[in-house]
Amino acid sequence: MGAISRRPGMAGVNEVFAMAYEFIKTEVVDGVLVMTMHDPPTRNALGPDMAAEMFERLDEFENNPEERVLVLTGTAPSFCSGANVRGFRRRIDEREAETEPEPLTWGKMEYMKGRQRPAESGPRVNFVPLRIHDLQKPSIAVVNGPAAGVGCGLALSCDIRVVGDSGRLSERFVLNGLIPGDGSCWQLPKLIGTSNTLLLQYTGDWMGGEDAVHIGLASKCFPDDQLMEGAMELAKRIASGPTVAHSLTKYLVHESMDLTFREALELASAAQEHVRRTEDHKIAVQWFLDKNRGMPPFVGR
Amino acid sequence: MGAISRRPGMAGVNEVFAMAYEFIKTEVVDGVLVMTMHDPPTRNALGPDMAAEMFERLDEFENNPEERVLVLTGTAPSFCSGANVRGFRRRIDEREAETEPEPLTWGKMEYMKGRQRPAESGPRVNFVPLRIHDLQKPSIAVVNGPAAGVGCGLALSCDIRVVGDSGRLSERFVLNGLIPGDGSCWQLPKLIGTSNTLLLQYTGDWMGGEDAVHIGLASKCFPDDQLMEGAMELAKRIASGPTVAHSLTKYLVHESMDLTFREALELASAAQEHVRRTEDHKIAVQWFLDKNRGMPPFVGR
Amino acid sequence: MGAISRRPGMAGVNEVFAMAYEFIKTEVVDGVLVMTMHDPPTRNALGPDMAAEMFERLDEFENNPEERVLVLTGTAPSFCSGANVRGFRRRIDEREAETEPEPLTWGKMEYMKGRQRPAESGPRVNFVPLRIHDLQKPSIAVVNGPAAGVGCGLALSCDIRVVGDSGRLSERFVLNGLIPGDGSCWQLPKLIGTSNTLLLQYTGDWMGGEDAVHIGLASKCFPDDQLMEGAMELAKRIASGPTVAHSLTKYLVHESMDLTFREALELASAAQEHVRRTEDHKIAVQWFLDKNRGMPPFVGR
Repeated sequence: MGAISRRPGMAGVNEVFAMAYEFIKTEVVDGVLVMTMHDPPTRNALGPDMAAEMFERLDEFENNPEERVLVLTGTAPSFCSGANVRGFRRRIDEREAETEPEPLTWGKMEYMKGRQRPAESGPRVNFVPLRIHDLQKPSIAVVNGPAAGVGCGLALSCDIRVVGDSGRLSERFVLNGLIPGDGSCWQLPKLIGTSNTLLLQYTGDWMGGEDAVHIGLASKCFPDDQLMEGAMELAKRIASGPTVAHSLTKYLVHESMDLTFREALELASAAQEHVRRTEDHKIAVQWFLDKNRGMPPFVGR
Repeated sequence: MGAISRRPGMAGVNEVFAMAYEFIKTEVVDGVLVMTMHDPPTRNALGPDMAAEMFERLDEFENNPEERVLVLTGTAPSFCSGANVRGFRRRIDEREAETEPEPLTWGKMEYMKGRQRPAESGPRVNFVPLRIHDLQKPSIAVVNGPAAGVGCGLALSCDIRVVGDSGRLSERFVLNGLIPGDGSCWQLPKLIGTSNTLLLQYTGDWMGGEDAVHIGLASKCFPDDQLMEGAMELAKRIASGPTVAHSLTKYLVHESMDLTFREALELASAAQEHVRRTEDHKIAVQWFLDKNRGMPPFVGR
Repeated sequence: MGAISRRPGMAGVNEVFAMAYEFIKTEVVDGVLVMTMHDPPTRNALGPDMAAEMFERLDEFENNPEERVLVLTGTAPSFCSGANVRGFRRRIDEREAETEPEPLTWGKMEYMKGRQRPAESGPRVNFVPLRIHDLQKPSIAVVNGPAAGVGCGLALSCDIRVVGDSGRLSERFVLNGLIPGDGSCWQLPKLIGTSNTLLLQYTGDWMGGEDAVHIGLASKCFPDDQLMEGAMELAKRIASGPTVAHSLTKYLVHESMDLTFREALELASAAQEHVRRTEDHKIAVQWFLDKNRGMPPFVGR
């Protein structure tokens, strides 16, 4: 992959729309889109330009049936260093005229819950995690180095996290006197419980490697030099699976959070009716009736 | 236990209704109902006949005050191999006339969420987990061997899981090109978090023994030859406890998922008022006022 | 700290309101309020008098900007032994005239869910956990010995739990034939999953030390003789952090439980707007622009 590359697999009528990206590198391998955040001078900080490129490429990923799994990583030695502290200064200046906040503010927040926020200009950096969360295809974060602040949020928004021995995550927001603005107050408790969530968010302490697996922050840990190989083995295996079933499984996991068990079962039954009509289900049934073993030759439809 | 046995403890007026089961074996020991899924040719696959027997016996379990804890297991060497792939072929044929599904379908699912499904004829195999989940008494799955697909869902629907060294669980649905139709998209994230849930559901990989305990899928692991002994020790201990308190504790854990902490406390206060009037509470208070130690001699009322 | 002490840091106009407590000891060290439950004859049982003192002192804690983190512990060798069994006898006598409860009661509970409970006289002991849960500042339970019944609930209601090798928790309610009336049916599943929750609640078994860390019940374990030192190091570090950001982080973690990811992100964005106006955020931005490293010199505003 060059620093700026045309993406493979984009030929024919779509070629005219293909864009050369500056802040991400992309490659498609065996149905896996590898998206590498790439801005070495900032250790891959997520700014508006990188966010815009990610939004665009993720839309394309979702619409391209040849791309079945997302792998998100960063140019070594960093995953993503978070947002850029220089941008903070400007925002502060914009707010100087405004009044001081009260020290204890839960009551005020209750009021803000019902309020609509004004639309912001440009891509909202802190909404990239939502875009990844909402992808209708599997996603894997390969945490190859520090993932700080919204960089941690990007990792958390993927379905699965694998870390290298040097991979580590931190809710660094607190060191900037900020709250986690990337949705990790929603995500972390679902992975590691409220106690460890608040410990990490109050302190900004790093958590990585096997420790991250131990508390449920990541699913697998690899030695650094085997990280991408191990992650790609998993990604390719998922990419050769039944894509429609994967998509609806993710949907059901998301939706079931707000349902009772009975409602979740009813929704799963409806989804199963849908999946039973896919080519992949028919392939699998014939495969096992023919006494084959292992993964059926799925086609992703 | 013979392959087909009359259940102990069913005498007198009820005897006329006692049924000999074909696909389950049952035994009552010290207040513990041991239900063993039993269909060796299919490694205890859950078909409509086994489901019908389970539904009937579980109704009886819930209504019989002498039976205070359910232990669910399978005839060795399997726990339950899931649904039967032969049934899938017939369902596919029934659907052949219908149209192909779209590849990305979350939007369509949103529509289906509000729709009522038509009633199906016969017992719905994938609703056995709901029946177990809704039991107003404690339940323990003793995973003595492979628990695959809906077999995994049966294990997940028990309150507590204990595994033997050879016990292992797999969301095998994906190998059939299907989604988990048994409610495990609701249950698994509550036990092991969303990341490990999707990893297991995307791949169908097995998880068992100490690894299952490590990620929270099971609470205890025993060597195979001590599994049933260890599980029964726990089950009998619970069966000699205060049954009404157990029942309402389970109710509160279920209900509290959808409540705020304050609402959950209010509901617990109401439940406590109820439990303070039980014979078991009075026995316990006298027991400790009399300077006794250990478990009071509860009667289950 | 004497058995009854005036609290340090309470001088000037407030001094006239300062109360000498009988059942708690308090000390303020570097912004950390250390509250020690203190009733050695009952191993620090939580009765109405101790509860009243805790309610009062926690109100004061929340309103005093100099006190930024709560540490809750008990006079050795106990954390808190729960409620007092002698009180149970009186309550039973009050209820003797009432009718017997039905054995299976989920249906009846459904009815009670909608019912308003009559106001009770005096402080409600089982609502102390709610008061701690709702504190708009960070809290740490230092479990130095047994924490039983509502004592366990007090530990669970703190944001973070650290345990000593001798620290252990138990849902002892069941030994009294009672349900967990302290809200732990809501809290425990969020920390350790439903399976381990019901196992602990059905049996009342103790869980402590490294085992508690392993299943997610506590975040850190220290040798007994280093417990308070380790806990205070953490508490002081948090107390020197950005207090407004801490407060809103806790708010977001609580609120996000009932929101979708998108809603949680919107709420976090609103909270971030608020926090960007704090003095601490401005201090932090300048600190890093000036090429400093480590924790900025936050002032807690």
